[in-house]
Amino acid sequence: MTGTLPGPTVGVIGGGQLGRMLGEAATPLGMDLLVVDPTPDAPASPVAREQLVADFDDREALHELAERVDYLTYEIELAGTDVLEAVSEETGTPVHPHPDTLRTIEDKLVQKRRLSDAGVPVPSFRGVESVDELRAALGELGYPAMLKARMGGYDGRGNVPIESPADVERAFETIVEAAPGASAESPSGAAMVEALVDFERELAVMGVRGDDERDTFPVTETIHREEILRETISPARTDPGVRERAREVALDVLDVMDGRGVFGIELFETADGDVLLNEIAPRPHNSGHWTIEGSLTSQFEQHLRAVAGWPLGGTDRRSPTVTANILGDVERRQTATLRNVNRVLEADGASLHYYGKQEVHRLRKMGHVTALGDSDPTALLDRIREIRDALTFR
Amino acid sequence: MTGTLPGPTVGVIGGGQLGRMLGEAATPLGMDLLVVDPTPDAPASPVAREQLVADFDDREALHELAERVDYLTYEIELAGTDVLEAVSEETGTPVHPHPDTLRTIEDKLVQKRRLSDAGVPVPSFRGVESVDELRAALGELGYPAMLKARMGGYDGRGNVPIESPADVERAFETIVEAAPGASAESPSGAAMVEALVDFERELAVMGVRGDDERDTFPVTETIHREEILRETISPARTDPGVRERAREVALDVLDVMDGRGVFGIELFETADGDVLLNEIAPRPHNSGHWTIEGSLTSQFEQHLRAVAGWPLGGTDRRSPTVTANILGDVERRQTATLRNVNRVLEADGASLHYYGKQEVHRLRKMGHVTALGDSDPTALLDRIREIRDALTFR
Repeated sequence: MTGTLPGPTVGVIGGGQLGRMLGEAATPLGMDLLVVDPTPDAPASPVAREQLVADFDDREALHELAERVDYLTYEIELAGTDVLEAVSEETGTPVHPHPDTLRTIEDKLVQKRRLSDAGVPVPSFRGVESVDELRAALGELGYPAMLKARMGGYDGRGNVPIESPADVERAFETIVEAAPGASAESPSGAAMVEALVDFERELAVMGVRGDDERDTFPVTETIHREEILRETISPARTDPGVRERAREVALDVLDVMDGRGVFGIELFETADGDVLLNEIAPRPHNSGHWTIEGSLTSQFEQHLRAVAGWPLGGTDRRSPTVTANILGDVERRQTATLRNVNRVLEADGASLHYYGKQEVHRLRKMGHVTALGDSDPTALLDRIREIRDALTFR
Repeated sequence: MTGTLPGPTVGVIGGGQLGRMLGEAATPLGMDLLVVDPTPDAPASPVAREQLVADFDDREALHELAERVDYLTYEIELAGTDVLEAVSEETGTPVHPHPDTLRTIEDKLVQKRRLSDAGVPVPSFRGVESVDELRAALGELGYPAMLKARMGGYDGRGNVPIESPADVERAFETIVEAAPGASAESPSGAAMVEALVDFERELAVMGVRGDDERDTFPVTETIHREEILRETISPARTDPGVRERAREVALDVLDVMDGRGVFGIELFETADGDVLLNEIAPRPHNSGHWTIEGSLTSQFEQHLRAVAGWPLGGTDRRSPTVTANILGDVERRQTATLRNVNRVLEADGASLHYYGKQEVHRLRKMGHVTALGDSDPTALLDRIREIRDALTFR
């Protein structure tokens, strides 16, 4: 038996809602959090020991952060792997998950190749460096397909669907314009194209790599619209066999990763009951927010345990749990005031999670609501939607 | 439907473990916390927007606090009711629970008289102002009895058992010496004596007064040793009829109180199945820590909802839940390092709550551990004791 308290100080790059929920999970464990975020008074700020106000890739700030903490982690993938690696080497402070993992994941083409090589089932894909290459790839993959920026995509940004040959040129231009370091003249390495999976439903598994152990949380169903996560349902409304396959795929994904931490693993379930990998996030993920109330250990506590090399917590689900995101429903960026909050507060078994962002814009993630119950997941989902739909920033 | 976010800023007098757990509950609700505590870097400090370092009754600091927040509350009863009332009047910031309630509760004799007058069953008691009065009272109440300082008792401090006539003089001196403002020459208002209840078990009910509503959490069994709470068991291992009586007594107690907030209501269950009131705390209470994992709403979230005048949350128990306090097991005051923490971290369904106090002394409350399960409460209790007993500051 080892392990002492007070626990370590953890430095988090990013102070958004994920950093905030990490902070809420840190103090019960006797851990302290420091965060770096460019927005003063970021969501994580009230629950962090201190916020350093600096850009995510500000090498000086990250160096200072690393010197003041025992472990570094990130809740946003924008630090840049080279900076992370350099800062870690200079200070001797470990980064989890390992920058190599981030390097693999942040380039969607490299990610898919690594995973495909390791036997993880993925949709058919091709790297494309020109409109001609894209046309040729589509000749093999067929229409419709999804063109993706290799780097920097987030919440659907950087993904452009291609329905027919008429869309090809426009789609390629859109991705190249949005790609960091690429341009129409020099589009090198900017894009990949993927067969659009005709999925039955989307699933997500929060996986975790600890010190010499790995585990998964129960398989969750995710519902997206406009490529933004809207609701999650746990357990996923699918066959036990599909859930078991999803878990196996997630464990195979974890084997490809390096370093410790939780990973959000997004999956497609096809009409035939096959499971294909969609995307991976090397951090706590929106699809795992239900674990705060729904699981024996939350994904945030689990991430902190993993990063610190502590034993992992139990991942069993306590009861059927659904979540619904509270998204910006305004047309323009404005100061955020959420109305009709009593609708959530009066609902028995509903839990509010507000992220404290000062400004709202269209589809911005501003909070989420969780509902627990013994009833069937579909009834719970109807209930949480009704509650969430009453909320408005207008 | 009303209610808007961001939520109010709440000022908390006291930044100990109760303030810390209030802070952990505040951010998901979109509330901000400011705390006043004389110990720099108090337990609540990392989860509060700011800590004002000042004494609990520092009128200037409390005035500043009141000016900066929407509501005032307290997690320790040491502000002094006059100061609270004055600051509230000067600034227009409401205090919950109302200072009148604190005034009633902080003097144990006044408390017992008010409750007794309202029909709440209490053990026989007498106010005593001299050794002679104490002897006379004991002639009526019989031995053994408990002599209590009317003011300032906490965690068993200020309570002296009297086994036989030989103890009387010594007991009275002890209480008078410890009593604020009293002395052997002028013991006025210092003490009360109470018949020692031959209880079957101790129970506790967290009650809550909201804006126009009141409620109770499920009845919990508490186990004390040396007058310090050691473990809680929910549901209490007693008859449903006794639990129902305990709930009724708690509701009657709430009716005597004024203002909003949660109240820790400690009760005795006698061998005959009667329920008598022991003591009341006008704030979240150690006997309610189990609600963090065990109830639909935690006592800390409930207190914040009540103080802000928001709708109260559901109080149903999610599953059998036990807690065990982590107490200082050292002889002298020293820097706190808790060992064998992996024993908690490796236990499935066990949750750690560390309070982050820098120093430990004998029997100081340093944290608690919660365990959830489907098994019977006694088996859960055995399990949590085994886990907790492995922890040591030595």
